[in-house]
Amino acid sequence: MEARLSGERFRVSYTLPGPDLAQAEARARALCIEQTVEFPADLVGDPDIREGVFGKLESLVPAGDGREGRFSAVVSYASECAGRELTQLLNVVFGNSSLLPGVRVERLDLPPGLLAGFSGPRFGRAGLRELLAAPSRPLLCSALKPMGLSSRELAELAGKLALGGLDLIKDDHGLADQLFSPFTERVARCAAAVAEANARTGGRCRYLPNVSGPAGQVQERARRARELGAGGLLVSPGLTGLDAMRALAADDELGLPILSHPALQGSFVVSPCSGISHFALFGQLGRLAGADGVVFPHAGGRFAFSPEDCRSLAAGTAAPMPGIRPAFPAPAGGMTLERVAELRSFYGDDVIFLIGGDLHRGPDLVATCQRFREAVEG
Amino acid sequence: MEARLSGERFRVSYTLPGPDLAQAEARARALCIEQTVEFPADLVGDPDIREGVFGKLESLVPAGDGREGRFSAVVSYASECAGRELTQLLNVVFGNSSLLPGVRVERLDLPPGLLAGFSGPRFGRAGLRELLAAPSRPLLCSALKPMGLSSRELAELAGKLALGGLDLIKDDHGLADQLFSPFTERVARCAAAVAEANARTGGRCRYLPNVSGPAGQVQERARRARELGAGGLLVSPGLTGLDAMRALAADDELGLPILSHPALQGSFVVSPCSGISHFALFGQLGRLAGADGVVFPHAGGRFAFSPEDCRSLAAGTAAPMPGIRPAFPAPAGGMTLERVAELRSFYGDDVIFLIGGDLHRGPDLVATCQRFREAVEG
Repeated sequence: MEARLSGERFRVSYTLPGPDLAQAEARARALCIEQTVEFPADLVGDPDIREGVFGKLESLVPAGDGREGRFSAVVSYASECAGRELTQLLNVVFGNSSLLPGVRVERLDLPPGLLAGFSGPRFGRAGLRELLAAPSRPLLCSALKPMGLSSRELAELAGKLALGGLDLIKDDHGLADQLFSPFTERVARCAAAVAEANARTGGRCRYLPNVSGPAGQVQERARRARELGAGGLLVSPGLTGLDAMRALAADDELGLPILSHPALQGSFVVSPCSGISHFALFGQLGRLAGADGVVFPHAGGRFAFSPEDCRSLAAGTAAPMPGIRPAFPAPAGGMTLERVAELRSFYGDDVIFLIGGDLHRGPDLVATCQRFREAVEG
Repeated sequence: MEARLSGERFRVSYTLPGPDLAQAEARARALCIEQTVEFPADLVGDPDIREGVFGKLESLVPAGDGREGRFSAVVSYASECAGRELTQLLNVVFGNSSLLPGVRVERLDLPPGLLAGFSGPRFGRAGLRELLAAPSRPLLCSALKPMGLSSRELAELAGKLALGGLDLIKDDHGLADQLFSPFTERVARCAAAVAEANARTGGRCRYLPNVSGPAGQVQERARRARELGAGGLLVSPGLTGLDAMRALAADDELGLPILSHPALQGSFVVSPCSGISHFALFGQLGRLAGADGVVFPHAGGRFAFSPEDCRSLAAGTAAPMPGIRPAFPAPAGGMTLERVAELRSFYGDDVIFLIGGDLHRGPDLVATCQRFREAVEG
């Protein structure tokens, strides 16, 4: 090896199967190789590569969650292996080992030198609160749907949601650039409707169109959205790749807050002994990739998340990462007005409540939104 | 709904849990809503949306694989819901339902109108064979590694692998733009070494650098690689997003064959009752996203794939999709020279054999590669 390493290393906590300590250790040591050189260790003679580039098993103990035969391994990697790129960081953390049975990424511990390559959420919790002039209460969000409505119809809904006092109105994640409501037409109309409502109420409601789309068009759509008056962006990093979201957050010409949506990311979390933890995927990686708010299905809706998953996810949105702002958890997925108090006691006030279809149950959408707003102002 | 639908629909086969038929039907019908309008069905009055946009349950039967309490549901969706975008197609297929417990995508059935929006692999099996002047035998591939070697050292390896008669030499998927071997320097040196070897042997070996990287740089790296003499590209769509690969394949100015690598995609396939099947993810979606060859870990290596998974994956690389070329399966993951005959009887001749570290076991890399070549020419 000709290059000089800084000596800085980042750590990844994995859980992996044993069934006993000796077998767990063999798996953990294999993982140190798999995630770096991916080459028979005995054929690597260069001591600098062996010492610097190989992953290092820092600790191995029985998993604290009481699951029989599972172990917690902390592995460290040279920061240089990640090459200051989110794609390559993900690759070192879990590229090949995502294919190994029973291995789960539980959390990342990233040192300042590596984090210096990431700007994280542009606004974060404090910045988004300032944009919305909502210094302490939970923030309120809804989604424009159903898919199939015209841009005109969606804009009418957007206007009502804004008149009712919501803070954030996002496109449903299923609104892309379909003929029902083509992107440019939809964004122009919905942004105008929200601006008009704000003019009437004096509010600061923001419309966040969905810019998830083809690789070459994500940034273009985001910039167009800004020109058309959008106040933020919705991105599904499972569809676009996490780095596409990071690039939007880092784009100074955009300067817009970002909500992330979990579409297609479920496969990383639904199996408790594989994939990536809620804490790491939605919390830590979501923030590294620039999300100011992270949408996910709260427990008790129609999805698979447990209360413990949600608690852990929310903890990840605020876990210390030097230089990276905390994001808002945005529990959703079949939430109802009746559950606002319960969710508030679960998440506290640093939360975005996202209620979709349930707001449409009453005869008067504006009035229902006002009740939603009153529920968090009381 | 103001827009007119064509009436064309695509179908997705899911397996999902019951435990009995009635409960499976309730889940399948919920999925029809979840993947489209994501809105309380009783609140959608518009008959055109109910009839055209809602997913339709086309069939529901006990899963044929004998797994107790699992059911196969075929759901159809209007092609317009996917808006001619791979990101949105993925979203309709499995966006929210990836978050539902126990749901797995088994296969896609895409009609010609929808497929017309995709060009698929630029070369496919026949085209890649023509590029390599290898009309019928298995193709031979290896990877440049370990990470930590300098560009000069990697180029030396590339030259030897090419002299030994390999067809394709790819970067290890862990080589990005690290200081060990920066992208431009590495690609220039390795491409030159392979060209020099070809000049000596009269061969047509191609070097495929890894262009997986930040969202804004994938295309740029690919074009730079072409200028520097690369003969193809390696992409990890799990890191970049599937659509970034599709965009490279569709780029006429590039015109290079693409190998895909499964980094970070493991979480979609490792749990048999969630995620996406090997057939659909690596076969069908890999081809929609433009892969000419699909790297994956063959059974019996150090990963979790079973022989049945591999057989099904390989079937997906050639399953009929009108207008979309078949891709090569590229089994890898700890393969050895000794297993070539076994792999050939498993996959037949339409296969890329990818052997990494094992080629380096002998004293003479060129001679070992020649033995590899002889093994498939015999």
